[in-house]
Amino acid sequence: MKKEYVIGLDFGTDSVRSLVADVCTGEEIASATAAYPRWAEGKYCDPSQNMYRQHPSDYIEAMEKCIRESIAVAGDEVAGNIIGIGYDTTASTPVLTDKEGTPLALLPEFSEDPDAMFILWKDHTAIREADEINDAAHDGPTDYTVCSGGSYSCEWVWAKVLHCLRHNPGLRGRVWSWAEHCDWIGGVLTGNTAPETMFRGRCTAGHKAMWNAAWGGLPDMGFFKKTDELYSIFEGHLFTETVTAGHKIGGLTEEWAGRLGLKPGIAVAMGAIDCHAGAVGAGIRPGVLVKVIGTSTCDIAVADPGCTGGRIAKGICGQVDGSVIPGLIGYEAGQSAFGDIYAWFRKLMEWPLGMIPEKDRKAVSDNILPMLNRQASALEVTENDPIASDWFNGKRTPDLDPNRRGTICGLTLSIGAPGIFKALVEATAFGARAIDERFAEEGVRIDEIIAVGGIPKKSPYVMQVLSDVLGKEIKVADSGQACALGSAIFAAAAAGKYKDIPAAQKAMKSGCSGIYYPDAGRKKVYDTLYAKYSRLDREG
Amino acid sequence: MKKEYVIGLDFGTDSVRSLVADVCTGEEIASATAAYPRWAEGKYCDPSQNMYRQHPSDYIEAMEKCIRESIAVAGDEVAGNIIGIGYDTTASTPVLTDKEGTPLALLPEFSEDPDAMFILWKDHTAIREADEINDAAHDGPTDYTVCSGGSYSCEWVWAKVLHCLRHNPGLRGRVWSWAEHCDWIGGVLTGNTAPETMFRGRCTAGHKAMWNAAWGGLPDMGFFKKTDELYSIFEGHLFTETVTAGHKIGGLTEEWAGRLGLKPGIAVAMGAIDCHAGAVGAGIRPGVLVKVIGTSTCDIAVADPGCTGGRIAKGICGQVDGSVIPGLIGYEAGQSAFGDIYAWFRKLMEWPLGMIPEKDRKAVSDNILPMLNRQASALEVTENDPIASDWFNGKRTPDLDPNRRGTICGLTLSIGAPGIFKALVEATAFGARAIDERFAEEGVRIDEIIAVGGIPKKSPYVMQVLSDVLGKEIKVADSGQACALGSAIFAAAAAGKYKDIPAAQKAMKSGCSGIYYPDAGRKKVYDTLYAKYSRLDREG
Repeated sequence: MKKEYVIGLDFGTDSVRSLVADVCTGEEIASATAAYPRWAEGKYCDPSQNMYRQHPSDYIEAMEKCIRESIAVAGDEVAGNIIGIGYDTTASTPVLTDKEGTPLALLPEFSEDPDAMFILWKDHTAIREADEINDAAHDGPTDYTVCSGGSYSCEWVWAKVLHCLRHNPGLRGRVWSWAEHCDWIGGVLTGNTAPETMFRGRCTAGHKAMWNAAWGGLPDMGFFKKTDELYSIFEGHLFTETVTAGHKIGGLTEEWAGRLGLKPGIAVAMGAIDCHAGAVGAGIRPGVLVKVIGTSTCDIAVADPGCTGGRIAKGICGQVDGSVIPGLIGYEAGQSAFGDIYAWFRKLMEWPLGMIPEKDRKAVSDNILPMLNRQASALEVTENDPIASDWFNGKRTPDLDPNRRGTICGLTLSIGAPGIFKALVEATAFGARAIDERFAEEGVRIDEIIAVGGIPKKSPYVMQVLSDVLGKEIKVADSGQACALGSAIFAAAAAGKYKDIPAAQKAMKSGCSGIYYPDAGRKKVYDTLYAKYSRLDREG
Repeated sequence: MKKEYVIGLDFGTDSVRSLVADVCTGEEIASATAAYPRWAEGKYCDPSQNMYRQHPSDYIEAMEKCIRESIAVAGDEVAGNIIGIGYDTTASTPVLTDKEGTPLALLPEFSEDPDAMFILWKDHTAIREADEINDAAHDGPTDYTVCSGGSYSCEWVWAKVLHCLRHNPGLRGRVWSWAEHCDWIGGVLTGNTAPETMFRGRCTAGHKAMWNAAWGGLPDMGFFKKTDELYSIFEGHLFTETVTAGHKIGGLTEEWAGRLGLKPGIAVAMGAIDCHAGAVGAGIRPGVLVKVIGTSTCDIAVADPGCTGGRIAKGICGQVDGSVIPGLIGYEAGQSAFGDIYAWFRKLMEWPLGMIPEKDRKAVSDNILPMLNRQASALEVTENDPIASDWFNGKRTPDLDPNRRGTICGLTLSIGAPGIFKALVEATAFGARAIDERFAEEGVRIDEIIAVGGIPKKSPYVMQVLSDVLGKEIKVADSGQACALGSAIFAAAAAGKYKDIPAAQKAMKSGCSGIYYPDAGRKKVYDTLYAKYSRLDREG
């Protein structure tokens, strides 16, 4: 029997990965990554202002390079039997486009203008605009933030596009619409980028643009114009319908088939936000929470709308029908800082190294976290231990509060670096427990936890604490590329190989490389420490 | 005119200092210190159990050595015109004595028994006994802790002597009474150590033994026997009267005159607790707060009993009529950790130095605090800065709570070591402000602050923050030996050179080596940060 394959593309913050996978088993045949060339040079960004922009050509060039490399590794036999392409992207990473749907930075006159480029998810230039949108939403007859945890973020599309329109009048004459990175990639590959006809992704629209079937799509244009008349530029140039990830949005164009070395007409699947694709790759289903754990966390759950009686779960950032799997409510929660807190403490410990010769610093610096992990894991866990909170970068879920700050308390003169590091690790686990408990309170059942990302692979101490604090088993997905695998699953579904996403997942999803089991004794002590953490939370 | 001189002895934790001063001006003629020889070897202590004992021979030998050295430097002319000796000691540092008032460790059979030695102020072996005394005091008809901030400390005499009697039955047959270090030194020099006749110091008895004229001296023996019948050993062997520091308790004996190279019969003054003597040397008077600032602080104020209408000041650890200056209420407040918090942070910063060659560590380590002081002082002070509390070693004043712990909050991922150090310095200043405000609330007027001790001399950044947070000028006493100078003032008063302590202070007290002035702008920001600190305090 002839074997068939799919490509899963994972557009990350710094690079894009192409995974060639067996469509029947999900087995990895080949993969390659390509960095964004202009981004790698630090162009179009100003970290001091939290301004982060990416040039559309970065995506196009890097995509072409990594797909060609991955199929070169896979060989001609495989390349000739690739039947679909899926992808995921960061979000909200929107761009202003012209009437043809072309990102303005691809026009010669705007090719070096950061406001004409994609505005990367972590760009924080639109804080003021987000505040205004929130005021309008909370004052209006419909609170459009109700499925976004009650607050519209400065990281999201409506705030970002307004910011660019306000601060760059020169663009206004050419702006017609906007597109998310996740919309535009599909549009490019299928040759359908016109703003009014291009397929729009449910996942990004629902989580980042306040799209909701309940209010007939995007919020009413009148709502936006209350904040700023500039929004009227988009009037009639946007969309009402969205499609879910894995939906076939067309066939690969002749042009792109040639550029990539693939057959024209193969299925292109609508994509999703990267961690949603990761959840699909790791095996998300009702009852399973997939935690993508790195510098921060993104926690994805799905539930049948019947389970929660249609109720909106209180204090969960994002909840969108079909954002992960069609027919199920997709929930996105997360902690604003996780591994970043350990990195913060490492940096604190690096401070005195400024006083030793530069050549000796790296060896010590590289050893700080391994040593802290070792020493912290050797400490006994007691009810009198110091406790910390995980709000060093604000609080995301539950109950969004970007102004919250980190705390370390219960300190005595005998607490050393390993004791503080232990408290910080426990704090990140307490933050995870707060999310887990909130899901339970809101009727979203979680029986199983699957962890993906950098931390689950490299930090056994952190994962054991997480399991002990949650009192739950944690499976670690064995694929280092769950996101690309999720995108491959979308491709397989779009190519018609499976009746739906769950069927494709069953065949293709990642296995599990290990399980952490909770220790009942430590769980009991952590219950007491977690109660103190919760008290910190209530005190605000 | 023939010049006359006095000796001020300052018995510290590790050594004793002898200061020879001009009785008319307080000018230092000579000084010498001698370490306690057995203590220096680490004998009779177990830091892991917080057990710290000092052999009476240590005091005797070191005193003899340093007095002889100081008068050798001063010369025969001076030595022949020394007219009095005063002293101060640590407290509560009691010892069990026999019928003659001899510390048991001076008897051959107990010479190596730590329970027969002086129990140093910081010994914490009697925690349980202190708890029992507190229970009895709070349940009884008279709350004898009312002038001790509502709590009897494990560092104080009644807890310590009971602990030794309980754990060392072999001593019981010889125990007759107890003496504070501050009682016994005077007894030795004047040849009057018999428990029933030896002069007892008001300062130690009032602050450490619940002595109070209002209830006729020490608490009733029935009160103690409720806690343990063992206390009956002391029945009839203690005292009702006490004398204030500077009171002449006798003349120097022939024997001690010979040993020390002084004239027999010269005045010996009752002593005081070291920081009380320091306050006298620095110029304490009504309206002045003397802060002895080192690893912790001891804050001394005095007020006319009329000022507070005889009321007991709420939450101030110790308040004893005449404990500092006869006729005035002496108040002792303090922070359990001050410089110790900076030392804790230095130690935290030293943790990664375990990974560099041992020979390179000291240079870095020595530079940590100077560098932190420099970098922290360069930071702007804003209302959003992280804040910390100073309860790393429990809270002493106001409102004693030994179980309180240190907190650092308001942390973000961009806060580095200088930012945390800044918060810790401000925390110690906030703790000082809480004491200052409590004095004001309780009617003890503070117009002027005089700082003595190690920190005021070596940490201009800390002192400036303290001035800014308090919004008050802070004078730094220029004598590095305010305690010994205070003892010299006691000697001058006992020798009859002045009509009272204030008159002797006026002539002899330390000058001021510098003044810190508060910055009004920073004071305003600190008012906001202090309000957050106060909120932490209320939340407990």
